[in-house]
Amino acid sequence: MRILVLGGDGYLGWPTAIYLSGQGHDVGVLDNAVRRQYDHELGSGSLVPIETMHNRVRAWRDVSGKIITAYHGDLMDADFTYETIRGFAPDAIVHFAEQRSAPYSMIDRKHAVYTQTNNVVGTLNVMFAIGEIDRDIHLVKLGTMGEYGTPNIDIEEGWLDVTHKGRSDRMLFPKRPGSFYHLSKVHDSHNLEFGCRIWDLRVTDLNQGIVYGQETTETALDARLATRFDYDSVFGTVLNRFAIQAVLGLPMSVYGGGTQSRAVIDIRDTVECIRLACETPAAAGEFRVFNQATESFSLAEMAKIVANTYPGQVDVEYIDNPRVEAENHHFTFVHTALESLGLRPHLLSDTLLTSMFGIIKQHQNRVDLDVLQPTINWRQTSNPPGIRS
Amino acid sequence: MRILVLGGDGYLGWPTAIYLSGQGHDVGVLDNAVRRQYDHELGSGSLVPIETMHNRVRAWRDVSGKIITAYHGDLMDADFTYETIRGFAPDAIVHFAEQRSAPYSMIDRKHAVYTQTNNVVGTLNVMFAIGEIDRDIHLVKLGTMGEYGTPNIDIEEGWLDVTHKGRSDRMLFPKRPGSFYHLSKVHDSHNLEFGCRIWDLRVTDLNQGIVYGQETTETALDARLATRFDYDSVFGTVLNRFAIQAVLGLPMSVYGGGTQSRAVIDIRDTVECIRLACETPAAAGEFRVFNQATESFSLAEMAKIVANTYPGQVDVEYIDNPRVEAENHHFTFVHTALESLGLRPHLLSDTLLTSMFGIIKQHQNRVDLDVLQPTINWRQTSNPPGIRS
Repeated sequence: MRILVLGGDGYLGWPTAIYLSGQGHDVGVLDNAVRRQYDHELGSGSLVPIETMHNRVRAWRDVSGKIITAYHGDLMDADFTYETIRGFAPDAIVHFAEQRSAPYSMIDRKHAVYTQTNNVVGTLNVMFAIGEIDRDIHLVKLGTMGEYGTPNIDIEEGWLDVTHKGRSDRMLFPKRPGSFYHLSKVHDSHNLEFGCRIWDLRVTDLNQGIVYGQETTETALDARLATRFDYDSVFGTVLNRFAIQAVLGLPMSVYGGGTQSRAVIDIRDTVECIRLACETPAAAGEFRVFNQATESFSLAEMAKIVANTYPGQVDVEYIDNPRVEAENHHFTFVHTALESLGLRPHLLSDTLLTSMFGIIKQHQNRVDLDVLQPTINWRQTSNPPGIRS
Repeated sequence: MRILVLGGDGYLGWPTAIYLSGQGHDVGVLDNAVRRQYDHELGSGSLVPIETMHNRVRAWRDVSGKIITAYHGDLMDADFTYETIRGFAPDAIVHFAEQRSAPYSMIDRKHAVYTQTNNVVGTLNVMFAIGEIDRDIHLVKLGTMGEYGTPNIDIEEGWLDVTHKGRSDRMLFPKRPGSFYHLSKVHDSHNLEFGCRIWDLRVTDLNQGIVYGQETTETALDARLATRFDYDSVFGTVLNRFAIQAVLGLPMSVYGGGTQSRAVIDIRDTVECIRLACETPAAAGEFRVFNQATESFSLAEMAKIVANTYPGQVDVEYIDNPRVEAENHHFTFVHTALESLGLRPHLLSDTLLTSMFGIIKQHQNRVDLDVLQPTINWRQTSNPPGIRS
């Protein structure tokens, strides 16, 4: 099928694009390269060197013989969005093209407004383009498990059967997100569910856990196909950051008491989940939600796993939690939908961590220690413009 | 207390401002006059002539001897918002300053994006201003009963006690709004609830029913104090529109089967609810939600009440429903919080309708029949730019 990957130059968008291409789909990627711009703003960068979008696409052609069409532009530009969708004529659109960092959204008012405007309006533009051009296009939209917060009940997949005062209904699962970024995804979900009702759109909303790992079968084929490996406190995800701290001989910095749980998923499962979602589209008018996460650990447990696997001494440092979040909470979530479509999860293992240690060692001279410590505090309306320590 | 009314030039903002002033509060109004600009765009206008914001404030001074400070500007302008709040130093901020028409938000992509951006970013700017300047300022924010949609369970006041698989939690009531406008209010509610958690903000979210009526004790004191009376299909609310159709000898246009229920409230109760909310602030960190509506009727029932009260023949015309909504549904909502604070509701009565008929008769030469029929269809992504028939 024809699949357009929005945000196809990013950490997950790129591996997804070449995975889908390798699986025989006709793939296009759309990106405005703003993720690379955030690095310039923050003084951060990928641990593993990455090629430009154009070079990546060329490298993939060299390696696989397959063509990926690349579109450079911004979803905030409705004309560009409409033209690209009209031109590529996808069967499915995979939407990764949002500002995806919680700390980035919490820097100050401008970053909060930017995150919500960029994410919500970009998604509205995609919705309207589908509504106008072809309502059969299946939208596979990336959300996050962080939309749910930490309710004291089990987290279902997007919907909840509620019984109240003797009556019942199937309702959107009530959400309590923990940052302006997470909120933007909740706003998207509400907008999209409405689009399914009024225009019979087909939408799959993927509430993804925190992704770890840096390699997929395809990115490993050639160094030019590598995807980003972020370790800074703004864009780096927790397991990746712990692994890097271990290799560098630094203590792993655990926020607060470390008893907070996070849903996680291996990068190789992410790309497979997207394939499964695309190949089994939502019905017309269906707002389908999958929890795209396979396990959960507390931060302290993650640190322990990394420490036990690393062949050397690793310490843990408990630092003041810059976030406002519950540290002792119930956390059980349903994640059967993708498995019932065929997902065979890679669970967090020694093997994966060991391979990550190898990648990190290879590039450890590129690490900038200044970007590791968190400097963005949820309790403040404004965090210093020089956000490096 | 010092109360700043955002949107203080609008249908409800203005009567609220002079009511609060009359009750002894020090009142400021902030408005960008964009509501008057929508009239230019749509070719619509208030049935009752209204004065400019400056003339209104002068007239109120003449009539009452009280001063209202007026600020002209836009909440999208963060500097202006911060400066006004810093300068006026309110104890409470009443926030009416949003694009408030569901059909307007459904015209096309641009109007949907405008509505969500204007409403969500304006509210974020207010939140950040409070977070930075004085976290004790109580924000009284206007939401709508339309945020809930038509769940098959009773509608509680913003929060719901959920029991699921043997565990329970108090969660935000799951919402299923029916337009891009209603969605913008749901987004606001989520953002504000987060603000209460991270910055200990004090927020009261008022889910208001459809307001009817045009006169309050204060607006009736002088013709220059009158508030808007909208009857067009975009900004006119349903009961007001039926009353106008009755007086003009036109059939009352009921959308669809007319069995859809709407929560309603008398304009005199609106202003009193705002006073009650301001004078009993939410606690620090509390996201308090009140359902600001006193009764509900189906559209057909409303038409019947108007027909029975009007001294003459009135017909009902059932027209294709331009909205996508359930027409046969459960609709029971809790509305005890404001009554427990002291609200004594004005229920829909012959007296009120008769006084409305009088106001309409007085100004019926100003009616433009072209703007009465709905031309914005929820099923379309784009409704003709000339939105008059």
